[in-house]
Amino acid sequence: MADQPVGPLDSLRYPRYAGIRTFARLPTLEQAGRADVAILGAPYDGATSFRPGARFGPSAIREASVLLRPYNEPLRMAPFAEAQVADAGDAGPDPIDVGAAHAAIQAAAGDLHAAGARVLGLGGDHSVALPFLRAAAERHGTLSLLQLDAHTDTWDEYYGHKVTHGTIMRRAAEEGVIDPRASLQVGLRGPLYAETDLEENAELGFNTVLAREFELERVVGAIGATLRPPVYVSFDIDCLDPAHAPGTGTPEAGGLTSREALSVLRSLVALDIVSADLVEVSPPYDPAGVTANAAAAIAYDLLSLLVRSSRR
Amino acid sequence: MADQPVGPLDSLRYPRYAGIRTFARLPTLEQAGRADVAILGAPYDGATSFRPGARFGPSAIREASVLLRPYNEPLRMAPFAEAQVADAGDAGPDPIDVGAAHAAIQAAAGDLHAAGARVLGLGGDHSVALPFLRAAAERHGTLSLLQLDAHTDTWDEYYGHKVTHGTIMRRAAEEGVIDPRASLQVGLRGPLYAETDLEENAELGFNTVLAREFELERVVGAIGATLRPPVYVSFDIDCLDPAHAPGTGTPEAGGLTSREALSVLRSLVALDIVSADLVEVSPPYDPAGVTANAAAAIAYDLLSLLVRSSRR
Amino acid sequence: MADQPVGPLDSLRYPRYAGIRTFARLPTLEQAGRADVAILGAPYDGATSFRPGARFGPSAIREASVLLRPYNEPLRMAPFAEAQVADAGDAGPDPIDVGAAHAAIQAAAGDLHAAGARVLGLGGDHSVALPFLRAAAERHGTLSLLQLDAHTDTWDEYYGHKVTHGTIMRRAAEEGVIDPRASLQVGLRGPLYAETDLEENAELGFNTVLAREFELERVVGAIGATLRPPVYVSFDIDCLDPAHAPGTGTPEAGGLTSREALSVLRSLVALDIVSADLVEVSPPYDPAGVTANAAAAIAYDLLSLLVRSSRR
Amino acid sequence: MADQPVGPLDSLRYPRYAGIRTFARLPTLEQAGRADVAILGAPYDGATSFRPGARFGPSAIREASVLLRPYNEPLRMAPFAEAQVADAGDAGPDPIDVGAAHAAIQAAAGDLHAAGARVLGLGGDHSVALPFLRAAAERHGTLSLLQLDAHTDTWDEYYGHKVTHGTIMRRAAEEGVIDPRASLQVGLRGPLYAETDLEENAELGFNTVLAREFELERVVGAIGATLRPPVYVSFDIDCLDPAHAPGTGTPEAGGLTSREALSVLRSLVALDIVSADLVEVSPPYDPAGVTANAAAAIAYDLLSLLVRSSRR
Amino acid sequence: MADQPVGPLDSLRYPRYAGIRTFARLPTLEQAGRADVAILGAPYDGATSFRPGARFGPSAIREASVLLRPYNEPLRMAPFAEAQVADAGDAGPDPIDVGAAHAAIQAAAGDLHAAGARVLGLGGDHSVALPFLRAAAERHGTLSLLQLDAHTDTWDEYYGHKVTHGTIMRRAAEEGVIDPRASLQVGLRGPLYAETDLEENAELGFNTVLAREFELERVVGAIGATLRPPVYVSFDIDCLDPAHAPGTGTPEAGGLTSREALSVLRSLVALDIVSADLVEVSPPYDPAGVTANAAAAIAYDLLSLLVRSSRR
Amino acid sequence: MADQPVGPLDSLRYPRYAGIRTFARLPTLEQAGRADVAILGAPYDGATSFRPGARFGPSAIREASVLLRPYNEPLRMAPFAEAQVADAGDAGPDPIDVGAAHAAIQAAAGDLHAAGARVLGLGGDHSVALPFLRAAAERHGTLSLLQLDAHTDTWDEYYGHKVTHGTIMRRAAEEGVIDPRASLQVGLRGPLYAETDLEENAELGFNTVLAREFELERVVGAIGATLRPPVYVSFDIDCLDPAHAPGTGTPEAGGLTSREALSVLRSLVALDIVSADLVEVSPPYDPAGVTANAAAAIAYDLLSLLVRSSRR
Repeated sequence: MADQPVGPLDSLRYPRYAGIRTFARLPTLEQAGRADVAILGAPYDGATSFRPGARFGPSAIREASVLLRPYNEPLRMAPFAEAQVADAGDAGPDPIDVGAAHAAIQAAAGDLHAAGARVLGLGGDHSVALPFLRAAAERHGTLSLLQLDAHTDTWDEYYGHKVTHGTIMRRAAEEGVIDPRASLQVGLRGPLYAETDLEENAELGFNTVLAREFELERVVGAIGATLRPPVYVSFDIDCLDPAHAPGTGTPEAGGLTSREALSVLRSLVALDIVSADLVEVSPPYDPAGVTANAAAAIAYDLLSLLVRSSRR
Repeated sequence: MADQPVGPLDSLRYPRYAGIRTFARLPTLEQAGRADVAILGAPYDGATSFRPGARFGPSAIREASVLLRPYNEPLRMAPFAEAQVADAGDAGPDPIDVGAAHAAIQAAAGDLHAAGARVLGLGGDHSVALPFLRAAAERHGTLSLLQLDAHTDTWDEYYGHKVTHGTIMRRAAEEGVIDPRASLQVGLRGPLYAETDLEENAELGFNTVLAREFELERVVGAIGATLRPPVYVSFDIDCLDPAHAPGTGTPEAGGLTSREALSVLRSLVALDIVSADLVEVSPPYDPAGVTANAAAAIAYDLLSLLVRSSRR
Repeated sequence: MADQPVGPLDSLRYPRYAGIRTFARLPTLEQAGRADVAILGAPYDGATSFRPGARFGPSAIREASVLLRPYNEPLRMAPFAEAQVADAGDAGPDPIDVGAAHAAIQAAAGDLHAAGARVLGLGGDHSVALPFLRAAAERHGTLSLLQLDAHTDTWDEYYGHKVTHGTIMRRAAEEGVIDPRASLQVGLRGPLYAETDLEENAELGFNTVLAREFELERVVGAIGATLRPPVYVSFDIDCLDPAHAPGTGTPEAGGLTSREALSVLRSLVALDIVSADLVEVSPPYDPAGVTANAAAAIAYDLLSLLVRSSRR
Repeated sequence: MADQPVGPLDSLRYPRYAGIRTFARLPTLEQAGRADVAILGAPYDGATSFRPGARFGPSAIREASVLLRPYNEPLRMAPFAEAQVADAGDAGPDPIDVGAAHAAIQAAAGDLHAAGARVLGLGGDHSVALPFLRAAAERHGTLSLLQLDAHTDTWDEYYGHKVTHGTIMRRAAEEGVIDPRASLQVGLRGPLYAETDLEENAELGFNTVLAREFELERVVGAIGATLRPPVYVSFDIDCLDPAHAPGTGTPEAGGLTSREALSVLRSLVALDIVSADLVEVSPPYDPAGVTANAAAAIAYDLLSLLVRSSRR
Repeated sequence: MADQPVGPLDSLRYPRYAGIRTFARLPTLEQAGRADVAILGAPYDGATSFRPGARFGPSAIREASVLLRPYNEPLRMAPFAEAQVADAGDAGPDPIDVGAAHAAIQAAAGDLHAAGARVLGLGGDHSVALPFLRAAAERHGTLSLLQLDAHTDTWDEYYGHKVTHGTIMRRAAEEGVIDPRASLQVGLRGPLYAETDLEENAELGFNTVLAREFELERVVGAIGATLRPPVYVSFDIDCLDPAHAPGTGTPEAGGLTSREALSVLRSLVALDIVSADLVEVSPPYDPAGVTANAAAAIAYDLLSLLVRSSRR
Repeated sequence: MADQPVGPLDSLRYPRYAGIRTFARLPTLEQAGRADVAILGAPYDGATSFRPGARFGPSAIREASVLLRPYNEPLRMAPFAEAQVADAGDAGPDPIDVGAAHAAIQAAAGDLHAAGARVLGLGGDHSVALPFLRAAAERHGTLSLLQLDAHTDTWDEYYGHKVTHGTIMRRAAEEGVIDPRASLQVGLRGPLYAETDLEENAELGFNTVLAREFELERVVGAIGATLRPPVYVSFDIDCLDPAHAPGTGTPEAGGLTSREALSVLRSLVALDIVSADLVEVSPPYDPAGVTANAAAAIAYDLLSLLVRSSRR
């Protein structure tokens, strides 16, 4: 009825921490009508093993993203002018059932891919990379993965569960969603559960550059030697040192600076990147906002790379 | 051109801390088409004498407002179902020129009033009450003011300036925008500049209930004896004790609890309220978020009262 | 083998935020051998609808509890000298599967009850009250509930789930674990989903004192008129105002002071209380530690009441 | 006129966040030349049993005091115009040797008393009250004490030490510096070490109003019945509830609001107060600054009472 | 000896957290009588485009500066013994009118220059560099600028205003206050408004070393090739990475470490520096105090360089 | 009597901030029965010259250590499987008397050494290194010291005291506990009291690598050239930059990253290390927990080195 007011979202259906405040003050997907590159939030943190809070990651990244300006100087491009970038809101925020949450994320990302968009997912804990990867592979085939992360995320299970924020890359490899031999993990560090952790990771096929081995030239070389189209970039904010990203679930000392991480991203400019994610930003542990600030800068470069790829 | 992407807002024209994330997840005014009651942010804090930061007030209140639910139990009403409530975004955020900022706020609020809406303004420092009051008076005539505040805001000038967050109620009285004799200030406290401060305030006509005199019955009595339609409610968050609202520009110990303040608002249910504001929420001084949380609850009750008034 | 070192707990089985730092520096259950009253942590927050973090509640309450001294002056008793009180550690911390987590909590609490102990559960989100209630009812029969809470927690479902932190009291009533007509909810406030929320709550049989109706005498009267043995006390820290308890999942302005809440607890001294819980303490949102400090004081009074009950 | 006191900077001309810090922007003692009432900081916290940090108390209180204005409305006086008030800086800050620190504080306070000033000491932990009391008694004789505090501070020793922040009032009583029978403690609460704690306190002669017994009328009555000149007021900030004063060494839930505490102070206007202290403000535990803000308001009232007393 | 400078308090005798605050506990200008090098605060932040708060910068830097010791080891000098350094307090703090604020700052700095002092300005937002530059140029002629900054600050206008914290270097160039061709900007990074931003900056004549190009040798080379007497150093704290300086108005990831920035300053020892500023320290966004701590270290090196220059 | 309950620790004897929550969830010494490597907390901060709070260091490091996993990848060892590592609790926490505190720490560490354990001490302020060094030297003879620190800690006295957190390395040298010529200090920086500070340090025999000279190769070379068995490693967390370790007593800008510091530790794998300490972690100044997180990682590597040494 015409007189019936339009009310707010139903919080019994759609959690309150989810929903759109647009990234970089971009139009929503609804407003823009279409998107070459779409941002999709995945405010789910129910599969995290230590500190939760990443369900507020999309909100905090969007809030911090208002500082971004239109011209990406290092990449020499104006991403929002060269392609239609839009914010597609949040998907899959059921906080209780990991299967339902992942299915909803995969469906929403799949719809975007099906409509021709390249997708940047904003987590959420790292478990949400799995539905993002599945949706991208469904569209583009087996993916070549660049994973910036303190952890391999190729453990087999946690507390008896196969799908957690520390096991999803093994799942993706098992499913053929990614090709580990065409995949590279950068920034690994910290104590492990066993000597075999890295061995098993290597047996799965993954290539690695540890944080203590980090040199830009070395990483650029490994990228050139390993990645091949279609590429997916999964950026776990904990690849940064806790000085640069305290607001995350499982911080590990000895990580990358934001300057180093941004340099790696800018070296990807020639690759065909079909999708990416940025995960594990946990605002309750970020009192000075440096994590969200770094995340906005990283998301901006990821978006720019997706725009560049979409223009090819 | 059809292919031209829709880009983000121009931050050289429109500051980055301004812009819409809707209150209570309500539709934007654009989405709703019309509004019986409209929320309008005024993220301006350039006329504050001590701690700035209230320019981020609208953003923080909207963020905290996601916790609100549709039914206002104490007032026995579903505000968003009984009338069209919409979020009209932010106005007047020029951070440098108080005149320009106020003119823009007055214009935007005036447009809403002209379209038949009742307006809830979200500050910003208390100076923004002046353009909100002017716009309401332009539509509804001289106003009867209920001011919840630690300070009278009737000083004459600060640093030689006539329009600051501590002088606007004197300006409003001088302009005939409010009728001090039909106005009531509740929650006043703290040291003054001179013995004459309260005397001059009384000479202007204002009625007062000091914080140390606070009893609900006394306030309800004073409201009944003083206010007459059309009523404007100006809620400075610093009427609350710093325990309940640390995130504000000029906190004063010895204030109201949030329970006391909400009780006052709920006693207004029979009044014809044409507009209201909620000001001086300064997020950088609110590390635990209690100020924004209280502000969202207060804004919800103010909105409900405006809806009730609009239905008469 | 004798030479095999004793190593740390396996974090792939037992999450890192769980495990014992004893409450009030009491002995562990293992050290004490037996317990008349036992503390059991339930660091699970996977069924929370807004802010997570309560999985760190038991740890933070234990940390804050080091300030407690041995003599409870208002109750005129030395709880730790009058009965054996011990810290039984944490149970049920599977962060991902609510069913598994609740089953483990119920089993651990059931073992304590079976051994003759009265149990104080430390949450965790409010969903953990359900296994604590079930375990107590299994031992003592249908329970008379005193619930201090901002919310009824008798909604039917959230996001399609029947067991969440907002639905457990309806579940407990349906299961016959509690008798709503012998149950009292104190501190309710905040917006609701619908007018029917409180009506349905009353139809289930629950008695209520809203936060805005709070007077100690009224509450004491309602306690006397409603509760009957065996009593269970469920204390959701959000019954306190956010000024006193910012560190919680769904804060609501207008709540009780810690002095008011402690007065209620001290009025329970004549009741036969068989078990209790203290839930929804979320340390990441508690930068000044006031929530954990209040929680430690509340837990101390709950323990004292359980000791008193155990001596009858 | 030569007798015209040098007052603080005019905050209507010169914003409060500017300038070099003294309490309330008053002149230093050196600048003023003399003082009827002097502020003396005692940044010592080496005798505290739990959280340290009160060594930064004087600095934080001065910083927060810039918000104070010249006219004390509830007491109807302009304290800085009616007498010369000056900031005498800090004394006795040896952080390592309690004896040396206390001797230096006593000497500095003694010099001020000898020059005819009434002294407001800013701690520091509560142990610094002992040298302040000794200096006042040396000048004015045995003192009648009003102590606002969560704790009696009449325990006999801590870790084998006779002088700690929890034992100084017993020492003062033993030395004849205070007369416990003419002394009143207000705000006591929290667990004790033993049933005998309050009994021994009473045997020493102290009169008490517990926090849970707090009513303004009762306190005013007890003040009238107990205190006699010369009066010393010792204000431990932990008499306030942690919601109002999280930044303190040993917070206890269930305390006074700042409004209640200020009401007590304002009831003292007829007493002859020769000295006072304000202690246990610990800035590292005060992220939102509410403790320092309340402390500045309390110090302002204490100064006003000292000015009033000095004018008799 | 009459020429012996009045130095700071001895922190080996008198702890750093005690006493009334000046920078590094130096004498005020009034106390010292004269100054070879003077510190002048400019607590103005009304021309900032995003986060305010820098008005509290001078206060926070002074507070943090108490940790400084008298001997500058890398520069092998005792700055406070080699010349008279004094704290001249704050100037120009009108928070509302940028013109009035700048005029007052320029006048106060001009007086210091006229009296033969070299001036270190403490902001405040970067707009205050304009009056500091004007005052220095008035005395010393057109300046050679070293600007450490994430941003060029050579945009033309913001929200229609010509004088903001993002436009002052263009204004200074237009006025002939600085010679862009003899000027160097170090640390630039982050998204721009347009491709032309850096081109226009170069057309104005500015030389640049971007943050991603940062190597100490390169910067030292550019300094040698560009700067010529008289030199002015403008240090915007946002040239540091947000990990090192979260408390600033417009943080940009990917910045310098404090070690790198201090190395640049120490390379300036042979230059004739006539004035400097340190701006954009925003304490409300600095919960751990790292920004103020870094700022104090930077100010100390700037002061040392000014002392060295003044001795030539 | 068998019925007498086991109660909590007596907080009048043993401060509340002390006591065991085991490091890395290891067994207590009592539980393990014996230890090849033992962790011993020393929660004493009474000899600190600026910010206190390090008394909560052991508690915070243990809390952060729950994130550690069993396999040390860079050192290719499983420290807790190769030797018995146990947490021996806290010693010497008298907060008031430095002599008593140090004696208790030395006695407790001495007992561990006598039982054949290698000891990792967790401070506390740096003064606690003195009793740890004395206990190690008593067992192993004069020690070769590797000190990672921003400060030499070889000043002669502070406020007339010979034993403070800034003087203990001079004391240790005077006593023959360490051999300065076989000792290396890494990370020194910041202003000094006098030009002679570093000269006197060198005259005592200490070798140094300043922070501004830091290169891993240079440090490794100096380690090889200087250290000889038995080695003691003293790690003051302030050797890290405040970005990486804000939570410390006397932060100095321009320090090491956590990656650099961990690289130094990993270069020590061939040395015979008999004991180590990790000091100056001050949790009240660590709002984001990055300091405790870095400290846990450092303690893990120190433990691993001690295990490796114990296996020789």
